[in-house]
Amino acid sequence: MQPGIQLSERISRLTSSLVREILAAAQAPGMISFAGGLPSPDAMPILPKSPNGYDWQNPVFQQYGTSEGEPYLRKQLAKLLDDTGLAVNPDQILILSGSQQGIDLSAKLFVDPGTPLLCEAPTYLAALQSFQLFGANCIGLALDGNGIKAEDLVRHIEIHRPSAIYLIPSFQNPSGSCYSKQTRQAISEVLDYYHLPIIEDEPYRELIYDNVDRTPICSLVKKAPWIYLGSFSKTLWPGWRVGFLAASSDLLPYLIRLKQAGDLHTKRPGQICIANWLAGSTKDEDLRRLREIYKQKRDSMQNALTQHFSDIATWKTPAGGLFFWLSLHKSFDTRPLLKEAM
Amino acid sequence: MQPGIQLSERISRLTSSLVREILAAAQAPGMISFAGGLPSPDAMPILPKSPNGYDWQNPVFQQYGTSEGEPYLRKQLAKLLDDTGLAVNPDQILILSGSQQGIDLSAKLFVDPGTPLLCEAPTYLAALQSFQLFGANCIGLALDGNGIKAEDLVRHIEIHRPSAIYLIPSFQNPSGSCYSKQTRQAISEVLDYYHLPIIEDEPYRELIYDNVDRTPICSLVKKAPWIYLGSFSKTLWPGWRVGFLAASSDLLPYLIRLKQAGDLHTKRPGQICIANWLAGSTKDEDLRRLREIYKQKRDSMQNALTQHFSDIATWKTPAGGLFFWLSLHKSFDTRPLLKEAM
Repeated sequence: MQPGIQLSERISRLTSSLVREILAAAQAPGMISFAGGLPSPDAMPILPKSPNGYDWQNPVFQQYGTSEGEPYLRKQLAKLLDDTGLAVNPDQILILSGSQQGIDLSAKLFVDPGTPLLCEAPTYLAALQSFQLFGANCIGLALDGNGIKAEDLVRHIEIHRPSAIYLIPSFQNPSGSCYSKQTRQAISEVLDYYHLPIIEDEPYRELIYDNVDRTPICSLVKKAPWIYLGSFSKTLWPGWRVGFLAASSDLLPYLIRLKQAGDLHTKRPGQICIANWLAGSTKDEDLRRLREIYKQKRDSMQNALTQHFSDIATWKTPAGGLFFWLSLHKSFDTRPLLKEAM
Repeated sequence: MQPGIQLSERISRLTSSLVREILAAAQAPGMISFAGGLPSPDAMPILPKSPNGYDWQNPVFQQYGTSEGEPYLRKQLAKLLDDTGLAVNPDQILILSGSQQGIDLSAKLFVDPGTPLLCEAPTYLAALQSFQLFGANCIGLALDGNGIKAEDLVRHIEIHRPSAIYLIPSFQNPSGSCYSKQTRQAISEVLDYYHLPIIEDEPYRELIYDNVDRTPICSLVKKAPWIYLGSFSKTLWPGWRVGFLAASSDLLPYLIRLKQAGDLHTKRPGQICIANWLAGSTKDEDLRRLREIYKQKRDSMQNALTQHFSDIATWKTPAGGLFFWLSLHKSFDTRPLLKEAM
């Protein structure tokens, strides 16, 4: 920084992001990236050349739109969420420029410098970066294969009086952990008791390979305020940057206004493309194919790890998602290996 | 708010946005909106059906991209800016989800609660909303037809010691004011003397009807840090939400990381579409046609105002952009008229 430039206090907490560097490195020709949740190009559905439903090239969709998002997409998403057990009406949905933006909006909603915020340990690096940028005191709850422990949650709420909790209950990034049905229920009861808002991030939901529970915790809470973040970056086209959130009615109006102040609204042609896919006839087959591709990759990785890592590490085979989490038998700084691996 | 929800301090400053309500109302069938900078659908170029340059439907552009944006687009933008007099290399450019996002990033960069920030009075409503959300103490400098006054600027810097200044020098929203060449030069010298960062917002640049100076103040400063915000929402397709910023090298690295934390990166197909247009052969003719359409509208409005408002208001005919600013002879609360006009 030049002498004389007065930057905000928050900038002192702005860390360089490994995620951004990984995205840049992963674009290099010939690079096979095992770092970061980069979806497989083979698994992406082909972009429809001609309109299937609304024509996103229609001039009407090139004009400014509403901050909330396209009614057609919000309607399709309400249906989609209904199938997960999360009953919402379309008015409770806000379309985002990727679900990462939902983290930015949540940080703006809850976080002042020093605000205690609960999360999993480990958790999604770019969420941590965003919450910490706003000054959150992020307190990590230990994860095992079934999620965090309800008694841990109670203890941390009593000690820290957090403003919210950020969880990735299904196929967590980076641990691969998937919360059991019992854990989901127990967590929801604690949240209700303390009226603690939950930010539930679920980008990996559709990448399921084994039969496990995926009931959104947001659908189980009865009194606690909630924000549910959804993504199409693992099922469709991450380059389009379209995600969404659904929220309880005590939080949603703030989130809509924060979205408007942030970037007015999400691009409309992308919203229409995705709504057409949701309303279309290929969805189930596209998802079946997607799961098959990723399940094969999961199994290949499992086999390779068994062959090469059995004697130095332990891990649990993930039931879905994109992540294996290995615990080395001996403590070891793996960072220097990144350069060598690249 | 429910009792017990701990929202951030910033949320107490989150105002309902007239801009958002205008965007919603303007979508109603049959509505002719004179409020807000909504571009005319007639003036938008047709979306190219087939690729002109890179094929944005190429699967490579459906994958995650880099936070900085597509190299192809950044290269075209460096050329575009070169023509305005702002010499930058492509590495100084960051692609945004609309230029409104540049305001959000600038607020994150400069503003803590209470930070003094200079702007024009009046200024763009949604910029004010965003800066104030972060707690800025926005101090307005009076505008006349030639811009703000350099001596006013000096006085306000000496009194308030602001962190930055936000200006819309060309065809300002909402006053229509366009800074004279002399004013641009004088302002740039004051900024250099005080090393005061400028955020220059220029969405209306291409909508020029009369021969006036549009030299970016960012191109005139020699030492002051600067952020230049550019948009395609008035020349191409606002529904796509693609904008950009260029910045001095002392600010850019922070802005890139803030972008990454906010929404990872801007949608790639939209970036490619716009880069193709910039590199293509229709640009000059599209812009000529655009100016002709808007000049006719400007002249029609001027004639209608002369006919209906001459006896109750004064105004200066804007040399470009989308805005007429009327000063009523008598003080009068115009808000109740909005409902009647709708």
